[in-house]
Amino acid sequence: MTAFADIDTPAVLVDLDVAEANVSRFQAYCDLHGFRNRPHIKTHKLPVLAKLQTAAGAAGITCQKISEAEAMIAEGGVTDVLLTYNIVGSAKLARLRALAGRVRLSVVADSGEVVKGLGAAFADAPDPLTVLVECDTGAHRCGVASPAAARDLALEIEATDGLRFGGLMTYPPVGGTAAVQAFMVEATGLCEAAGLPVERISSGGAPDMWRAHEAPIVTEYRTGTYVYNDRSLVERGVCTWADCALTVLATVVSVPAPDRAVIDAGTKVLTSDLLGLDGHGHVLGRPDLRIDQLSEEHGRLVADGPVGLRVGDRVRIVPNHCCVVSNMVDSVVAVRGERIEGPLAVAARGQVR
Amino acid sequence: MTAFADIDTPAVLVDLDVAEANVSRFQAYCDLHGFRNRPHIKTHKLPVLAKLQTAAGAAGITCQKISEAEAMIAEGGVTDVLLTYNIVGSAKLARLRALAGRVRLSVVADSGEVVKGLGAAFADAPDPLTVLVECDTGAHRCGVASPAAARDLALEIEATDGLRFGGLMTYPPVGGTAAVQAFMVEATGLCEAAGLPVERISSGGAPDMWRAHEAPIVTEYRTGTYVYNDRSLVERGVCTWADCALTVLATVVSVPAPDRAVIDAGTKVLTSDLLGLDGHGHVLGRPDLRIDQLSEEHGRLVADGPVGLRVGDRVRIVPNHCCVVSNMVDSVVAVRGERIEGPLAVAARGQVR
Repeated sequence: MTAFADIDTPAVLVDLDVAEANVSRFQAYCDLHGFRNRPHIKTHKLPVLAKLQTAAGAAGITCQKISEAEAMIAEGGVTDVLLTYNIVGSAKLARLRALAGRVRLSVVADSGEVVKGLGAAFADAPDPLTVLVECDTGAHRCGVASPAAARDLALEIEATDGLRFGGLMTYPPVGGTAAVQAFMVEATGLCEAAGLPVERISSGGAPDMWRAHEAPIVTEYRTGTYVYNDRSLVERGVCTWADCALTVLATVVSVPAPDRAVIDAGTKVLTSDLLGLDGHGHVLGRPDLRIDQLSEEHGRLVADGPVGLRVGDRVRIVPNHCCVVSNMVDSVVAVRGERIEGPLAVAARGQVR
Repeated sequence: MTAFADIDTPAVLVDLDVAEANVSRFQAYCDLHGFRNRPHIKTHKLPVLAKLQTAAGAAGITCQKISEAEAMIAEGGVTDVLLTYNIVGSAKLARLRALAGRVRLSVVADSGEVVKGLGAAFADAPDPLTVLVECDTGAHRCGVASPAAARDLALEIEATDGLRFGGLMTYPPVGGTAAVQAFMVEATGLCEAAGLPVERISSGGAPDMWRAHEAPIVTEYRTGTYVYNDRSLVERGVCTWADCALTVLATVVSVPAPDRAVIDAGTKVLTSDLLGLDGHGHVLGRPDLRIDQLSEEHGRLVADGPVGLRVGDRVRIVPNHCCVVSNMVDSVVAVRGERIEGPLAVAARGQVR
């Protein structure tokens, strides 16, 4: 693959110049405000970018699944992993134990059942496993519901052989910065009153990443999307189209009517993720076009007037949600502008366990 | 992997007993009504099931992408492929030419541009390529818009060196059986009046598969979903839960509130496909539960009353859309009831080109 025009479609392109600038910019923001950056690698699933993020100053990486962590540390360069997921079941606990021997590891828990499982797996480990309490600050997914419950679970962790209490963690709702601050101040006070120092308070989420400093009690921030950005973040005013490092290159395969064209990218590349938006992505340079419908291998472009496209034309699309698009393909094409660097294998693609 | 309880989650399970029954039942229906069955393999992407479908009596298989066809014929047992996609661009046309040397191949076209590309690639081929005209019978995706346009494109195909006109093809809208019949009767009449016999009329779509005989002009039917079935087809009355061969096995990782539980399957297994439904799947045996929210690795179960689940419990989910779920994982687990047959590699997973 030597020329941009030779890239076969659909293809997921990653502009490394843009990604590197995104990594530097958010790292500088974290450094300015004095909190640690712990990027979520679910967005790119590429060891080379995990190493880039770490080299730029990240304190470590965040993974959702053990298999993601295994893939990210295989090449070296990453030595600190937070798994923001309740690890449940004997198969995964055995893998977690093995992972702890290879990297500085911390995990989360939001219930006594999860703590008991972790404790059983690490009771005879050479070093205790660091466990943060996951707190629900309004997203209503996982997490203990109150600061008092956070303190109680922290005490349970600290009392469990093989485990040590490592702090508090939350995945807040969009716009939840103030709620994070309030919850964490109260939970920290309760923990400290119970004799447990809170060494780390981890929050995250891309939509509010530039407001992270408004919850000053937070000591580390997790965001994945910042490395690529996407339409959901542009539409929320978090970044610009020029900051979007991941695009999908597609070819027009049909223009059945003047106001309609069909491209060779459907849900099996762009996915059906809407994130509250209308339509399925943004065609760069063509704000008049809407991707109004996707089937598995077709995307439909419509316009109020003529689409002005011909069979064989190519378009570049900023997807609604970049994190899920990386996961659809075995490799992305690294580019710098229109210069091609080559394919990058998405090492942790499909690593759901 | 020896026991059902040892399957690590999330896992995509395929019950081969159910799949085999589904294949037999629809084949018997096609045989009864005297049309050919040409299953779409995008649903399973498994050579073993393509061979099963062919052995059961299918006239060949349908693929959307060249790479799917390459993966399906690699093991043998499949000798006839229809590619229901406009093939555009030199890289794909070269692969199409190579594919034509390995299998009985037909493709579609809906424009002069596509026909010209195919003709250039096959002008010096030992045998002409069979090209069907894709017709828009109301789905407004690809396809020529009128029977007269179908006739005109058929003449263009027949006049192109390296190509031969092979018939008409459509992907109709749901409920479009009568529209298919009307369009195809008119188009066939026009083609025959122009001296072009229409040897094959191909329609498809899972929602109307049991009504295929209501468009008696159709000579072959394409459906993918029938091999597995899914929630979208149960909700439309096309099949029952017991006919659903593909399920997602997931583990409860959190029960943060009495009316809420969280499982380890999110959009990276179940996908965000809604197909017009509310919620993200059906929990077998628990019609009181709703999967009201997915993030990438979490699924949220809610109920009006207590969810009655504990951390570590497992649930089996019939997804909204089975075809996209197969594509999320490198392998599925073949089962017969609760007996495990073993993993099956999803050979054509992620084959988007």
